[in-house]
Amino acid sequence: MKLLRFGPKGREKPGMLDQAGTIRDLSGQIDDLAGGNLSDQVLGRLASLDASSLPSVPAGTRLGPCVGKVGKFICIGLNYSDHAAETGSPVPPEPIMFMKAISAICGPDDDVEIPRTSKKTDWEVELGVVIGKAAKYVDEENALDHVAGYCIVNDVSERAFQIERHGQWTKGKSHDTFGPLGPWLVTRDEVPDPQNLAMGLEVDGKTMQDGSTKTMIYGVAHLVSYCSQFMSLQPGDVISTGTPPGVGMGIKPEPVFLKAGQEMRLWIEGLGEQRQKTVQA
Amino acid sequence: MKLLRFGPKGREKPGMLDQAGTIRDLSGQIDDLAGGNLSDQVLGRLASLDASSLPSVPAGTRLGPCVGKVGKFICIGLNYSDHAAETGSPVPPEPIMFMKAISAICGPDDDVEIPRTSKKTDWEVELGVVIGKAAKYVDEENALDHVAGYCIVNDVSERAFQIERHGQWTKGKSHDTFGPLGPWLVTRDEVPDPQNLAMGLEVDGKTMQDGSTKTMIYGVAHLVSYCSQFMSLQPGDVISTGTPPGVGMGIKPEPVFLKAGQEMRLWIEGLGEQRQKTVQA
Repeated sequence: MKLLRFGPKGREKPGMLDQAGTIRDLSGQIDDLAGGNLSDQVLGRLASLDASSLPSVPAGTRLGPCVGKVGKFICIGLNYSDHAAETGSPVPPEPIMFMKAISAICGPDDDVEIPRTSKKTDWEVELGVVIGKAAKYVDEENALDHVAGYCIVNDVSERAFQIERHGQWTKGKSHDTFGPLGPWLVTRDEVPDPQNLAMGLEVDGKTMQDGSTKTMIYGVAHLVSYCSQFMSLQPGDVISTGTPPGVGMGIKPEPVFLKAGQEMRLWIEGLGEQRQKTVQA
Repeated sequence: MKLLRFGPKGREKPGMLDQAGTIRDLSGQIDDLAGGNLSDQVLGRLASLDASSLPSVPAGTRLGPCVGKVGKFICIGLNYSDHAAETGSPVPPEPIMFMKAISAICGPDDDVEIPRTSKKTDWEVELGVVIGKAAKYVDEENALDHVAGYCIVNDVSERAFQIERHGQWTKGKSHDTFGPLGPWLVTRDEVPDPQNLAMGLEVDGKTMQDGSTKTMIYGVAHLVSYCSQFMSLQPGDVISTGTPPGVGMGIKPEPVFLKAGQEMRLWIEGLGEQRQKTVQA
């Protein structure tokens, strides 16, 4: 299933995409696509519905973030060997975890703000993992049972705030709109191998990132297990699994960063695409 | 006002402490002490109630975290000059921000888990600032208008996970129960000078931390303003403002860490006290 949330910001309703690509309203079935509604039981019930019997939603309706009430927005740093190389960093001996503020979360096609004083706003296409069942000290072997599904994340980053401002990366990762999620939460049954998904990102039509989850250092099952050793994962938590090469910071001879008035387009095989315009905060 | 949340974990009700120290049930007035209910308007309405007309709650009822539905749990690192010194770190030229997982939040007197494989679980008494009104790019001059009130935070930390495990501090700050909040959210009108509060922490009756918010490097107004330059602050967000000297990691000649079966008691002037037993996860 391709699940989604539609409607005005902060008042999104749950929906699903039918076979013809029409959005169907699920608000008669569940209150939100969030928390306990991400369980196998509820998702199984939604999968058994006759989509054609559900109200249709007009094309062009705004999409919100594909998961509501996210508790934790965990990110993995330097998780593609070739991205680590482009940033001049060694391959980390174990996953690097950091957090984005949940107030950064926005819809897949919402405008992305360039923060005031920013000179180094950058892009990162990433595979997002949405937790469906609580996980604490879970084995790698059982880790994927705790995953509801997958989505695209743009881990938008301000590199000066992240690296040059005396502290932890969260400072450069958390501006409002720095976390577009969606368009869809694609349930895990439709993603049989999360380690073999092509992905890419364009800025103003020019390909900047062109990679595959094949080159992840630590795969999804390992990451879910790993994170669960340090904190309990709850339904609706999102783990963003790192980005392949091609970020602006890594461009030679000079890095390239975003300015207002540009457009990003990013996609992951089977998970749809996002488009964001950049605007000045 | 001294506001609080009482009852079983995950099903807490809002309450307040009356002049005689009795808990009064506010669940007929507000659904939770969270989000929009932390506004000046709602807090003003609660302040005008006759506490003696509200149902009383039996003494000994469990207290939950004093704020519900926390969106972000922001922490400031190395924010007391003498604590920076004891860890061997220079005074940071601007505030260091990091995040704790919100799943770490627990009640003020709940048991604190020692994570499996942990050898370096440590304590940190901190002044917590609870946001009452959204803040984005707010000036220092107006920053305190965005504060609902204050509470005690124990920023429990696993130092090996935080420092030796290849990544960002969040890894050592986020285990379940590593964030006791409370006992009370004390509204800001009762804390005229947040930069002049004595505070301390004992382990098994022995004083480990004995300090004052006087020695903070960056004060509350500066921190609220500063954080709001990097991310929008939302009602119910908590900023924990750093710890004074006396953490286990800083003890000479050898650091001292917690083991299961110990008791922490921590207090801040006017904000009450917390007591936690340590248990093995």
